[in-house]
Amino acid sequence: MFPTAVKIVEVGPRDGLQNEAQTVSTKFKTELIQRLIAAGIKTIEAGAFVSPKWVPQMADSVEVFKSLPTHADISYPMLVPNQRGLDTALELGVTEIAVFAAASNTFSQKNINCNILESMHRFRPICAQAIAAGLRVRGYISCVLGCPYEGEINPILVADVAERLLHFGCYEISLGDTIGIGTAEKSRELIRVVTRNNPVEKFAAHFHNTYGQALANLYAVLEQGVAVVDSSISGLGGCPYAKGASGNVATEDIVYMLDGLGIQTGINLNSLVATSAFVSAHLQRAPESKVALALLAKQK
Amino acid sequence: MFPTAVKIVEVGPRDGLQNEAQTVSTKFKTELIQRLIAAGIKTIEAGAFVSPKWVPQMADSVEVFKSLPTHADISYPMLVPNQRGLDTALELGVTEIAVFAAASNTFSQKNINCNILESMHRFRPICAQAIAAGLRVRGYISCVLGCPYEGEINPILVADVAERLLHFGCYEISLGDTIGIGTAEKSRELIRVVTRNNPVEKFAAHFHNTYGQALANLYAVLEQGVAVVDSSISGLGGCPYAKGASGNVATEDIVYMLDGLGIQTGINLNSLVATSAFVSAHLQRAPESKVALALLAKQK
Repeated sequence: MFPTAVKIVEVGPRDGLQNEAQTVSTKFKTELIQRLIAAGIKTIEAGAFVSPKWVPQMADSVEVFKSLPTHADISYPMLVPNQRGLDTALELGVTEIAVFAAASNTFSQKNINCNILESMHRFRPICAQAIAAGLRVRGYISCVLGCPYEGEINPILVADVAERLLHFGCYEISLGDTIGIGTAEKSRELIRVVTRNNPVEKFAAHFHNTYGQALANLYAVLEQGVAVVDSSISGLGGCPYAKGASGNVATEDIVYMLDGLGIQTGINLNSLVATSAFVSAHLQRAPESKVALALLAKQK
Repeated sequence: MFPTAVKIVEVGPRDGLQNEAQTVSTKFKTELIQRLIAAGIKTIEAGAFVSPKWVPQMADSVEVFKSLPTHADISYPMLVPNQRGLDTALELGVTEIAVFAAASNTFSQKNINCNILESMHRFRPICAQAIAAGLRVRGYISCVLGCPYEGEINPILVADVAERLLHFGCYEISLGDTIGIGTAEKSRELIRVVTRNNPVEKFAAHFHNTYGQALANLYAVLEQGVAVVDSSISGLGGCPYAKGASGNVATEDIVYMLDGLGIQTGINLNSLVATSAFVSAHLQRAPESKVALALLAKQK
């Protein structure tokens, strides 16, 4: 049963730009986020409070956050990996943070320098402290349909990590197919397993288009009632595990599909495509969105 | 209910190459088709008996056809627009032809210089003569989910054209979303309408990826039992209605999805990706296939 409306969580300005080779200016990030808001997006990952030594693309996240307009209905989840990041968030008056776990021990170790169990021990007090201070916490789980190091991932493991993060107080869990390797039936099986003990409303689909499967997978899980979708304007991000391949699915392509399915998003596709053109002009490359490519080609 | 097996109809060597700006050699076409056969594909559009004045890319179709290996289980549908094309097919001992109709009068007029009704009067005797001579005839209908000139197309019109072609003796009708504009629910509605009076086994899905929707649409109609899919190696073809946009969905991406769904195709994905690399090397450009891009990037 399809949802009547879908919430899009735009991840381009954080997850997208963090995985781009080019580092862009603070001014560009601020303008990008403002354009995304004007297009109707209400939840936008705006940055990460991480060490600039490890993630130079996010070194200006404090400035970016400070530059953003405050609207009661717009949320800017800021990625927080540790106590220091949380302290920054609390100082700045951030209202929503995100914590980033994995469903693969090897990936977790390589990405955040601890295994899954250790990451849970790290996130538990961060979640508790954030929630006590009135913040909302979004949980991410990466590698839900496969790991670049371990291969296949058992959905039971994903469900277990999700359950822990929900227990820590996360209001929503974003299920990330980090390497884009999953296909539709595996995506459905994942949703079946994670919703055994928790309602589907708690889960977001975060698909990558590395193997071209993102929209088919999304269609499959929308049928199961998934109503929150992560995506990246212009497909910002690429795939760090296969140079030259694509990563995050483009927001434009998803909104086009949802419009066609009669599922409301509150997002204006034309504004989104214009924002995609703005990104392309700035990064000097074609959009990783078929919809943007087709509509911009027709405008020429 | 998903089919247990899907027949892939490879259209790259005809529909694909016909819409490429570059004209390739006969030798390349022959080698491409042989590689596709080696990968396990059993139905391959190999050319068109059309005027070289209108379609220079297909000027060598007679030579291409003559160069191909004869296997009892491999079919090479050759596009035939008129009596002259049929005469050529009969002379050469072709065993399968294809006729190309449209679900839009304007498109039909611009593409084959007559409206739908006139095209039916043109194809009827061609089908009759071909079938009397023991040939199989495949029917194509373009613009089934939208027309570059007329916009929306009523599925009842598609069903009517399909019914006529089936009545003329076509063994199968390929439903083409020529401009790739359709989304999943419209694709399902189309299949619902065309199967009111004819079994789903008579229909093939021919989706374009211009708006990135091809695999989602395909997933949606596979659920309805569609078991024949047209696709193009490396996404050969482009989109003549939006320069720079993509056209035919890539065979590699479909086979990857079908493998993931546990639906048999008899096709070896690795051989297909190697064939895609062969096409890319020859045309000096990246494949229009996410799967080929990702797998070739991993091999580097």
